[in-house]
Amino acid sequence: MPQSPLNVLIVHAHPEPKSFCAAMKDLAVETLTAAGHAVQVSDLYAMGWNPVASAADFQIRNDPDYLVYALEQRHAHAGNALAADIAGELDKLLWADLLILSFPLYWCSVPAILKGWIDRVLISGACYGGLRFYDRGGLAGKRALLSFTLGGQSHMFANEDAIHGDWEPMLRPLQRGTLAYVGFRVLPPFPAYHVPYIGDDARRKILDAYRLHLNNLDRLKPLRFPSMADFDRQLHPLTEVPA
Amino acid sequence: MPQSPLNVLIVHAHPEPKSFCAAMKDLAVETLTAAGHAVQVSDLYAMGWNPVASAADFQIRNDPDYLVYALEQRHAHAGNALAADIAGELDKLLWADLLILSFPLYWCSVPAILKGWIDRVLISGACYGGLRFYDRGGLAGKRALLSFTLGGQSHMFANEDAIHGDWEPMLRPLQRGTLAYVGFRVLPPFPAYHVPYIGDDARRKILDAYRLHLNNLDRLKPLRFPSMADFDRQLHPLTEVPA
Repeated sequence: MPQSPLNVLIVHAHPEPKSFCAAMKDLAVETLTAAGHAVQVSDLYAMGWNPVASAADFQIRNDPDYLVYALEQRHAHAGNALAADIAGELDKLLWADLLILSFPLYWCSVPAILKGWIDRVLISGACYGGLRFYDRGGLAGKRALLSFTLGGQSHMFANEDAIHGDWEPMLRPLQRGTLAYVGFRVLPPFPAYHVPYIGDDARRKILDAYRLHLNNLDRLKPLRFPSMADFDRQLHPLTEVPA
Repeated sequence: MPQSPLNVLIVHAHPEPKSFCAAMKDLAVETLTAAGHAVQVSDLYAMGWNPVASAADFQIRNDPDYLVYALEQRHAHAGNALAADIAGELDKLLWADLLILSFPLYWCSVPAILKGWIDRVLISGACYGGLRFYDRGGLAGKRALLSFTLGGQSHMFANEDAIHGDWEPMLRPLQRGTLAYVGFRVLPPFPAYHVPYIGDDARRKILDAYRLHLNNLDRLKPLRFPSMADFDRQLHPLTEVPA
């Protein structure tokens, strides 16, 4: 069954344009376009993206003397006065049905340039605010996917007894604290293991597996995260789990 | 019992110099200095710190045509050819017995400017490499502490049934994947809750509690992380846990 056409935003953040991570990004563009989807890419290194959240992000200020970043985001967004680079990325984000973050794993997280895309573009007011988060988040209805390369091997993240523990807690700030928080349904991540140490054959196998992942988006079961319906207005759990 | 004098590096990353987070940083400087410790502060916003890992970080290159960031770190560090801003921070880091990261929690992690300090300063070769990680990491013998402000309240992170789950998994990439990985003993974090919404009295109570935390460093029990002795050279667990 063919998937219905999607708008896809790939936010890519690798300092080497010839990297395997970039090859995965190119494969994603090719595969998704061939499947009839519309694709935009934000290549953060190529764009010279500024990752530093600061007062310069707002053309008007609610309080010019004391910066509370999230409050100024809400105010500047309402007044159409976000810095141009942020407004451009926010437009792409709101256009997208699917967000793919494409990056090399740095310190079990995204590189700083991509963290700064998250910090500056996921605007309070547009993407979350008040009790609008998790399944009531501002981006509910959209899907998101982490696609990343790493030096480690799969057994190092196989379960909680592995040397680095399981992926779920290691990726929790990104998949739960960020993507699920603003309302995305988060698809299973695609880790490309051991990349600096493998040859062309193994790399081709990863690309084949990634193509399959992207051609089966509708069959991927989203990860499970909290539902706001299970918490009261002060965000205490409505039902305590029996001891 | 007085603590023996320590060298302390505080890496601080808040865009508002009058923030409560900055007041906590100032209190830490004052408290630790009064206790006889030597303190240096890297105030990343004030320094205009560049968080973007790139080829410009290396004055010499192992492979000028293809950037593998960690390999070039190792090569440039060995050749004394790291960019000057990185070399300066690495000197402070190697000098320090205790590292305090001081920041507002952005997306359940550090702001991008601080992520870029981690990406660029925790140099492969000096801080980790090969099988030199966790309790065999390059910075073994040092201690580290996360000190952060957030809008959320403590019950939202009280345990795995809380709306955002427990702190341990949420902070895992920072405390385990970064600090413990390079060898730090990681002290219990100090979260300052609900900061944008509380008055002066509540803020004073937080500062009092933080002073106590800093005056009792030797009584704080480090968090537990994997020991390399429990894994083989391929990093498989040596003893499987019975089912």
